[in-house]
Amino acid sequence: MQRSDGRKNDELRPIEIIPGFQKHAEGSVLIKLGDTWVLCSATVENQVPPFLIDQGTGWITAEYSMLPRSTHTRTRRAQGGRGKEIQRLIGRALRAAADMSRLGPRMITVDCDVLQADGGTRVASITGGYVAVAMAVQGLIDSEALAKNTVLTDVLADPVAAISVGIVHGEPRLDLAYEEDSGASVDMNVVMTASGKLIEVQGTAEREPFGRTQLDAMLDLAASGIRQLCAAQQSVLDRRDRI
Amino acid sequence: MQRSDGRKNDELRPIEIIPGFQKHAEGSVLIKLGDTWVLCSATVENQVPPFLIDQGTGWITAEYSMLPRSTHTRTRRAQGGRGKEIQRLIGRALRAAADMSRLGPRMITVDCDVLQADGGTRVASITGGYVAVAMAVQGLIDSEALAKNTVLTDVLADPVAAISVGIVHGEPRLDLAYEEDSGASVDMNVVMTASGKLIEVQGTAEREPFGRTQLDAMLDLAASGIRQLCAAQQSVLDRRDRI
Amino acid sequence: MQRSDGRKNDELRPIEIIPGFQKHAEGSVLIKLGDTWVLCSATVENQVPPFLIDQGTGWITAEYSMLPRSTHTRTRRAQGGRGKEIQRLIGRALRAAADMSRLGPRMITVDCDVLQADGGTRVASITGGYVAVAMAVQGLIDSEALAKNTVLTDVLADPVAAISVGIVHGEPRLDLAYEEDSGASVDMNVVMTASGKLIEVQGTAEREPFGRTQLDAMLDLAASGIRQLCAAQQSVLDRRDRI
Amino acid sequence: MQRSDGRKNDELRPIEIIPGFQKHAEGSVLIKLGDTWVLCSATVENQVPPFLIDQGTGWITAEYSMLPRSTHTRTRRAQGGRGKEIQRLIGRALRAAADMSRLGPRMITVDCDVLQADGGTRVASITGGYVAVAMAVQGLIDSEALAKNTVLTDVLADPVAAISVGIVHGEPRLDLAYEEDSGASVDMNVVMTASGKLIEVQGTAEREPFGRTQLDAMLDLAASGIRQLCAAQQSVLDRRDRI
Amino acid sequence: MQRSDGRKNDELRPIEIIPGFQKHAEGSVLIKLGDTWVLCSATVENQVPPFLIDQGTGWITAEYSMLPRSTHTRTRRAQGGRGKEIQRLIGRALRAAADMSRLGPRMITVDCDVLQADGGTRVASITGGYVAVAMAVQGLIDSEALAKNTVLTDVLADPVAAISVGIVHGEPRLDLAYEEDSGASVDMNVVMTASGKLIEVQGTAEREPFGRTQLDAMLDLAASGIRQLCAAQQSVLDRRDRI
Amino acid sequence: MQRSDGRKNDELRPIEIIPGFQKHAEGSVLIKLGDTWVLCSATVENQVPPFLIDQGTGWITAEYSMLPRSTHTRTRRAQGGRGKEIQRLIGRALRAAADMSRLGPRMITVDCDVLQADGGTRVASITGGYVAVAMAVQGLIDSEALAKNTVLTDVLADPVAAISVGIVHGEPRLDLAYEEDSGASVDMNVVMTASGKLIEVQGTAEREPFGRTQLDAMLDLAASGIRQLCAAQQSVLDRRDRI
Repeated sequence: MQRSDGRKNDELRPIEIIPGFQKHAEGSVLIKLGDTWVLCSATVENQVPPFLIDQGTGWITAEYSMLPRSTHTRTRRAQGGRGKEIQRLIGRALRAAADMSRLGPRMITVDCDVLQADGGTRVASITGGYVAVAMAVQGLIDSEALAKNTVLTDVLADPVAAISVGIVHGEPRLDLAYEEDSGASVDMNVVMTASGKLIEVQGTAEREPFGRTQLDAMLDLAASGIRQLCAAQQSVLDRRDRI
Repeated sequence: MQRSDGRKNDELRPIEIIPGFQKHAEGSVLIKLGDTWVLCSATVENQVPPFLIDQGTGWITAEYSMLPRSTHTRTRRAQGGRGKEIQRLIGRALRAAADMSRLGPRMITVDCDVLQADGGTRVASITGGYVAVAMAVQGLIDSEALAKNTVLTDVLADPVAAISVGIVHGEPRLDLAYEEDSGASVDMNVVMTASGKLIEVQGTAEREPFGRTQLDAMLDLAASGIRQLCAAQQSVLDRRDRI
Repeated sequence: MQRSDGRKNDELRPIEIIPGFQKHAEGSVLIKLGDTWVLCSATVENQVPPFLIDQGTGWITAEYSMLPRSTHTRTRRAQGGRGKEIQRLIGRALRAAADMSRLGPRMITVDCDVLQADGGTRVASITGGYVAVAMAVQGLIDSEALAKNTVLTDVLADPVAAISVGIVHGEPRLDLAYEEDSGASVDMNVVMTASGKLIEVQGTAEREPFGRTQLDAMLDLAASGIRQLCAAQQSVLDRRDRI
Repeated sequence: MQRSDGRKNDELRPIEIIPGFQKHAEGSVLIKLGDTWVLCSATVENQVPPFLIDQGTGWITAEYSMLPRSTHTRTRRAQGGRGKEIQRLIGRALRAAADMSRLGPRMITVDCDVLQADGGTRVASITGGYVAVAMAVQGLIDSEALAKNTVLTDVLADPVAAISVGIVHGEPRLDLAYEEDSGASVDMNVVMTASGKLIEVQGTAEREPFGRTQLDAMLDLAASGIRQLCAAQQSVLDRRDRI
Repeated sequence: MQRSDGRKNDELRPIEIIPGFQKHAEGSVLIKLGDTWVLCSATVENQVPPFLIDQGTGWITAEYSMLPRSTHTRTRRAQGGRGKEIQRLIGRALRAAADMSRLGPRMITVDCDVLQADGGTRVASITGGYVAVAMAVQGLIDSEALAKNTVLTDVLADPVAAISVGIVHGEPRLDLAYEEDSGASVDMNVVMTASGKLIEVQGTAEREPFGRTQLDAMLDLAASGIRQLCAAQQSVLDRRDRI
Repeated sequence: MQRSDGRKNDELRPIEIIPGFQKHAEGSVLIKLGDTWVLCSATVENQVPPFLIDQGTGWITAEYSMLPRSTHTRTRRAQGGRGKEIQRLIGRALRAAADMSRLGPRMITVDCDVLQADGGTRVASITGGYVAVAMAVQGLIDSEALAKNTVLTDVLADPVAAISVGIVHGEPRLDLAYEEDSGASVDMNVVMTASGKLIEVQGTAEREPFGRTQLDAMLDLAASGIRQLCAAQQSVLDRRDRI
């Protein structure tokens, strides 16, 4: 069955990662995954949460919010349980990507603000948030704030990205847009490293339970999508002059 | 490597489901999974949330909370993001088990209150919560509130249970207790039906990413645990005289 | 006029105090006063509230809450003014029982969570809470945390318990269950020491004002009930091996 | 032992009740009990709380608050548990005074705002609040809003007032000012009708438990104080032209 | 066109400033501007907000609230955006009047509580609040808390007052009462010093835009009103024995 | 004295108004005033606030918020008094521009979210918000939702824009950027119509009081800036094909 936007089942929406969107932030990108646009900004502060004081290690945390009119109808500003759950996921994923002991007693806060929503805002937040973190860490290296001779891959050895997959009309599909997502029988978000290891798997049967074969097919699709996203991330980070 | 409580890697903790704990509730069980004790109560109300008014269908929702001294050190009462995330999971799992159109315009609220915590409180909540829902639905049938000739399996065709699995010291293990859980490199919660279909898979790399082989091993362990839990659920529901 | 459960006007409901219910707590009992069940847990922390810092004395405080389905119909979790008022009463009563200067700079927090409600939850909380505090203090003595040679009666010289009394159908009655309580013209809670001194008297005319003679009759009933409750407390504390 | 302000043990502070303080309110008095000043305003609204809709009866409720600088040092505006507990007491006392079925479907809200605090703010609120309610009810009668031929005593048959008593330096004393109150070993608030019946008795041992003899002595003092307060209330209500 | 209370367009309502209303406060006045009554109390504390710690300078802040029945119909207690906006204005105006570096590390909090509202509560708060601050500063001088030889005019060189003006029925008018205010096409609040300098101008077209000529006419009226208010302030402060 | 960015005292920063930024909104622009970027979105809903029900007229309201990293250092998300005050100003200004009786029973909510802040966010919100409202109203006209033959100027007869002015180093300056704003002795925001009438004037002496001459000079500067802003608004609205 044809996808509404004409994509193939294993095809990502057009991906664009625009670095340096907010001039004040230590790291900032606007990531566009089709019509899903998320502004990801990394802030570095020279303090850590109470439970890490005097531990000599750093921390990464995230906040997630949607602008009221990022959605089809206006959403009220008060954040409910859904938003908190998503920002916990983003924070876990970004922490899994980093060797936080290399940061020293610093906290990186990644704000993910959805300017426009069309499905997949949480995975776009992780994929874009990783680039914002990498920009912020590179800034610490450039200003010689970290231990001598630290390079980016000491802190961020294996990049992290995320994508959604699902079962729609009985078929496994990659990168669900809002319309597909709301009609999917299974919805799964996968966070994976560039080298193909799993960080987080969250699959939910929205309409009917699914079997192991379907799970495997979705994970295969996700792995191929993640490879493309990691390439897009790397391409932005390689263009050092633009950052 | 030996598990701290001497169990084999594929062995559940002792499971006990005590029906009828709270006399006022339409369905109530105290579920004990080792030292994890959760009081699950189902309340039936003749109203539905605003978005379902005049839709002719019912709804199931859940609330989750821990008593302050269910934990090693006292936890403050104000519920944070973690509690909300867990109760959303419980609600989704129980809704997936039921044909809610059979309930009529009724809402079942399942309160899961952790009396004692030793790992796995959310999966115990789902496993016990299912029994509380089944008791409440049976009560509706017994009082002839539902459509004529409705039987329990019309509403609850394929029972649902949940269990945690993880990777500890490199080995896949079933049903992590608190001490193992806090040392696990991967932690996964699996919600499954009695017939072996997946409802929800939530796996998180706490320390290091995991591969597909490890994912498969964990899912196999989960499936075997779920079968035992569903048997325990059924055994309680069969003892109709005690309910 | 006959009481609905057949008791005499001066008769308590069956009382049971089960020690050690929550394994993590420094002191814990499940108290059952008929169908009113309250889980009381005492937590010891090595800190005091701001106003007591560097005063060399300790503090005892209480929190009170009802599980949503402890009641006939489900009660929402958000605590209103009634709960706060009750926990202030419990805290005052337990502080009146103790010589807190003997505790050193420590705070004991007593959580009273109502598992099932059938009238008299606040007095059951005080009666059970006292035992939880005594268990926690005995634990401090056993671990030699208090001043040398301190014995339990140095800290808790005169045990404290509480009971409700009221005027129902014109007759003074002891220990009102929910059904009687909601029909009482006067409702009174009395906190008293084992030696018969008053700690707190809270009498309210729910339907019609009362005279001094009725007040005296209620206080006499309360005194006799308190003596029985203090005996039950003592019996639990004497079985040291079970604690 | 001499009282700090030279009063005898059975002597009230100077009492003044100034009617009509806030021009917009249906009933309003500024009550001064020594240096304790409370502004009591009664608002009549043609609606009742949800639980009374279509019951044909009215309701009386109260709110209590202290201005930040009514106290020796500045108190923050956020109302804690103490304020809620006090306003519940005021509401109960005023409801006990009235036959609310005579009000029709109307709610009277009594705002008690403490302009200056020197002990006894809750009892002054009840004593002044009764006058504000009486003024509001008289206004309903004057405007022919109530059933034909209704007179004030149909609604308010037996006036209500309140006073504090306590044990200071071992002696029972009437109407404690702040300084005495903070040094009292027992503190008791008594709400009573003009005809000498008890509405509410709240006695608390702040420092040491008390016996029945002391309780009786305090109740005797309270009864004599209440008689004087009820006379002051009546005197204001008799001066109809000033209201 | 005649004003409803018979005043001329350039005429203030009767102004009365009663010092020493709340006995506990370091500075306290009840200001009456016609039927608008505001209780202004200044509290001095030996601490400053976090951003001023170790700066050697003081701070002045304000809180503003209306008693529920200060208004024609009862207003609920929860303060909304309007109250916060007003208290920010009051704080700015009072800070502009003072050389806060002379206060040392002290904070003066001015509580403005509206006992009765009839238009102009925010300007009455500023005018009365200034006197309360002056009384508190004089108290610091009298107790030799400030630098040696400090006199009141060192701290408060140019007194500050405020008044409302507006366009009603096409005519500029001074000091709008509630009824006029709600019918005004333009409403403006002006904060000015005794020497005629502007501190704050807030003009809003409620119904139709206004031109520069109207603005000038309103500012002229305001200047004349401020002169009278500053004279009233000074007269109170000169009567040192009453303070 | 030279301005830090080289502008003349009467020169605006570069202004850009990009229509159609958020695809879901009924009206949406990204307005850039130098480095101040505000996303303004207008949402039309077929309901009005409670106080306007059955009045046959519409309403316009605004919400204002800053993204956490729109500022030099990260700002926490919880909105304080300042944000509420600003959104009240924006709402008043936009309501003053419209004949809301022409909207029918509809509410337009304008969300102003600051993506980047460099001074003047509230005036940019008003200037951009007006265009978003005009786009939304034009959409209602195009879809024939309003009364027959309604044209845009029936609803929005006289466009509205806003700009800041101030006194810096003794000189009146137009359109203060953040650095200038924080050093200004007077800061004033002016809301004006395209025809030169005043809607709102808010001038505050941050450091020292100001005279009438300075006020006049600032108002002259503001008028010239507003003319340019209204031209930019009109130019966007004229390019109908892009909207």
